[in-house]
Amino acid sequence: MVTEKLALHITNTSYEDFNENAIREAKRSLLNWLGVAIGAANHESMDMVLNVSKLTDSQPQATVLGRNEKVDILFASLLNGMSSHIFDFDDTLLETVLHPSAPVFPAILAYAEQQKKTGKDVLEAFIIGCEVEARLALSVYPSHYWRGWHITGSVGGIGAAAAICKLMGLDIEKTIYALGIAATDPTGLREMFGTMTKPYHPGKAAMNGLLAALVGAQGFTASKKPLEAERGFLNVLSEENKAELITEQWGEKWEVEKNSYKPFASGIVTHPAIDAIITIQKEHKLQVEEVESIVITAHPLVKELTGKTAITTGLEGKFSVYHCVAAGFFNLKAGVYEFTDEYVNDPSVKNLRDKITLVIDEKIKEDQVHLTVKLTNGREISLFVEHAIGSADTPMTDEQIKEKFLDVTGEVICSVAKNELIDLIDRFEEVEDLTSFFHLCQPKETANQY
Amino acid sequence: MVTEKLALHITNTSYEDFNENAIREAKRSLLNWLGVAIGAANHESMDMVLNVSKLTDSQPQATVLGRNEKVDILFASLLNGMSSHIFDFDDTLLETVLHPSAPVFPAILAYAEQQKKTGKDVLEAFIIGCEVEARLALSVYPSHYWRGWHITGSVGGIGAAAAICKLMGLDIEKTIYALGIAATDPTGLREMFGTMTKPYHPGKAAMNGLLAALVGAQGFTASKKPLEAERGFLNVLSEENKAELITEQWGEKWEVEKNSYKPFASGIVTHPAIDAIITIQKEHKLQVEEVESIVITAHPLVKELTGKTAITTGLEGKFSVYHCVAAGFFNLKAGVYEFTDEYVNDPSVKNLRDKITLVIDEKIKEDQVHLTVKLTNGREISLFVEHAIGSADTPMTDEQIKEKFLDVTGEVICSVAKNELIDLIDRFEEVEDLTSFFHLCQPKETANQY
Repeated sequence: MVTEKLALHITNTSYEDFNENAIREAKRSLLNWLGVAIGAANHESMDMVLNVSKLTDSQPQATVLGRNEKVDILFASLLNGMSSHIFDFDDTLLETVLHPSAPVFPAILAYAEQQKKTGKDVLEAFIIGCEVEARLALSVYPSHYWRGWHITGSVGGIGAAAAICKLMGLDIEKTIYALGIAATDPTGLREMFGTMTKPYHPGKAAMNGLLAALVGAQGFTASKKPLEAERGFLNVLSEENKAELITEQWGEKWEVEKNSYKPFASGIVTHPAIDAIITIQKEHKLQVEEVESIVITAHPLVKELTGKTAITTGLEGKFSVYHCVAAGFFNLKAGVYEFTDEYVNDPSVKNLRDKITLVIDEKIKEDQVHLTVKLTNGREISLFVEHAIGSADTPMTDEQIKEKFLDVTGEVICSVAKNELIDLIDRFEEVEDLTSFFHLCQPKETANQY
Repeated sequence: MVTEKLALHITNTSYEDFNENAIREAKRSLLNWLGVAIGAANHESMDMVLNVSKLTDSQPQATVLGRNEKVDILFASLLNGMSSHIFDFDDTLLETVLHPSAPVFPAILAYAEQQKKTGKDVLEAFIIGCEVEARLALSVYPSHYWRGWHITGSVGGIGAAAAICKLMGLDIEKTIYALGIAATDPTGLREMFGTMTKPYHPGKAAMNGLLAALVGAQGFTASKKPLEAERGFLNVLSEENKAELITEQWGEKWEVEKNSYKPFASGIVTHPAIDAIITIQKEHKLQVEEVESIVITAHPLVKELTGKTAITTGLEGKFSVYHCVAAGFFNLKAGVYEFTDEYVNDPSVKNLRDKITLVIDEKIKEDQVHLTVKLTNGREISLFVEHAIGSADTPMTDEQIKEKFLDVTGEVICSVAKNELIDLIDRFEEVEDLTSFFHLCQPKETANQY
């Protein structure tokens, strides 16, 4: 009775059960996630989906973060889930490559805005939603991911549903139904990586999960064993069935405490290599003419996920470790600008990319890399990175996350609003009325206000 | 380049390419589907989802068939897809157990109502949507189904997307994107059979497919090989990859020509046994007291899909071949009433159910059955059904489908409206303005009109 036990945990857990570190990490998750969502708000794919929301005459119930439009709570979930994953710059649970915030926060915020919930409600729902999706991810990883599911989309909807169940205060039976309706509606093929549909996955997961919770709340019936049954989610979508991981030791620690934040705007597996080249460049300040070649020796997943060579768009650049290292070489960072079409097509960047090769080594861990720069004068500079910045062992500091927020939100909202949002999230558990929070996320509002 | 070839077929095919039989079968499909959708319109699960549509402030764009409410085109797709599958009385493509109308017609009708398309547009879009989902189903069947996917939900969304692409007149590139966005968003675990979530599957598929087409129409990018790629739909959701079945011999015949309609309101695999018991009863008019036991010898799928024994709800009755045979014994039919909670819990029905056993025989085909009634006096009456009524070899006549429409729509709309709808669908390709069609599907409108 895994799902029943899970539903019991969800209904029995409340804010008071969380330790200080979990609450702190939930707030760091929110700030990091909100920044990338606002930063990508004006991406053309956002305009496209907003056009569709107009075709359905979507009503202004909830804020599209970083935009002046409001839409209904389902479209708000879709749009904010999308924007927060467009830069590939959101948070990651490294054990399963799950991005926990993108499918869960959008559903929570849309519902919280409509139903006038508090900051504490939002944090409570998030820690629970994150716990559920993370444990589900652990129970199907790695076979689920290797089969081709984009785990953030496929388990994210169940996390979103769990969060909304908590926010609505559903009883155990309705929570079971909501989890079931979400489980039957997974989203996300990894085949979509490198296209606009990748960020569609967490958005659609948020939308599907919110809808599942709203429908389940009506008493709409579903299987009571949607996860663990012979033909339930675990068995149908993965080779293994580690169902015990979904409920065991619930409450002893929280998955959100393991959350990590990306210092670079590309796939997490590229980060050790970027960290390595930046460290080398900070010390050696090499000119591109001095470089004969660069050899990256890395974990097999690096080639699998980011082995793209012939790239022409910014999006593709995120899936090319070659491009990531070239960007780090020139700019000492790999932020939003380094993954624009313009930068990817810069001839000198392309030229350096072609000098970079990738060697796979099964003995090297996912957060490690060995990088060697061979110079035209015959000299070699090598560096082994033990734990890349942003990894569990070298987490970003609060200050670094705030700096990232100020940077990644760019020109979308004004700097006064940015700093007010940082302050609000710092004391989010005390915020009784979220109205000003949502106002600060809208450019027009912030422009009028200041 | 399977998806590209498929998109080319979709854009290049039009109404003029269909033979008369395909068009006739599309109209039979529409009438049969519309009847079961209207008939189940007032099911409590419909009220539940309508309540959710109110929470999202859904606007009146499209008709909920058999109801006075109108909702936006996405919710109309969800609701009409649900209602048409609630009775488990819709159409079936027997090779793959796919119910082709339920995920496709709702999306088409919602968009056609909003955009004022014609009857001919609707038929054209349906034949194409049906072709796409049916070929996809063939390409992943049986492993996909056996793994636990409810094929109507999981491939249905791609069929709905294809239909809407045609209705919108999208070009090849946007059609590829739409198919990809739908492919990444499959719905439906078989674990949900016997709950309200089973009919949620075609509804959600219609909603997901319509949304995918609307988003793809904006130029929103997706993989160009969403079906055939190493990590595309076929490989991720099934063990095999018979991609060639998706496009080969396109246009030589149409899948809709193979469509079949259920004479009984339960899973298709129960039909041979119901047919057998009704045939026996018509001849022998047995009293229940005369029956010692009944032995059903059938294809393995009968036990797999409808082997439920301890049943207490009408819904569960549809998944119990024992109940189906008991109903046929007493009532000489197995319609909507025979799958109500009331009827399932009738003590005499329950008593007869307990006397029925099921023997599996791999040599018996899916549309066959061997049924033996053992009498208390020691006599045995046996019947072998070669092709059950409703199967490809013994199709329902036009007259039988019209009678079913009149019966299954019950008291939801008035009989004048029923007959007008039958007439309208008979000449659907000539209907330029669908306004009166949708009016006739609303109880208030039909009550006002007559």
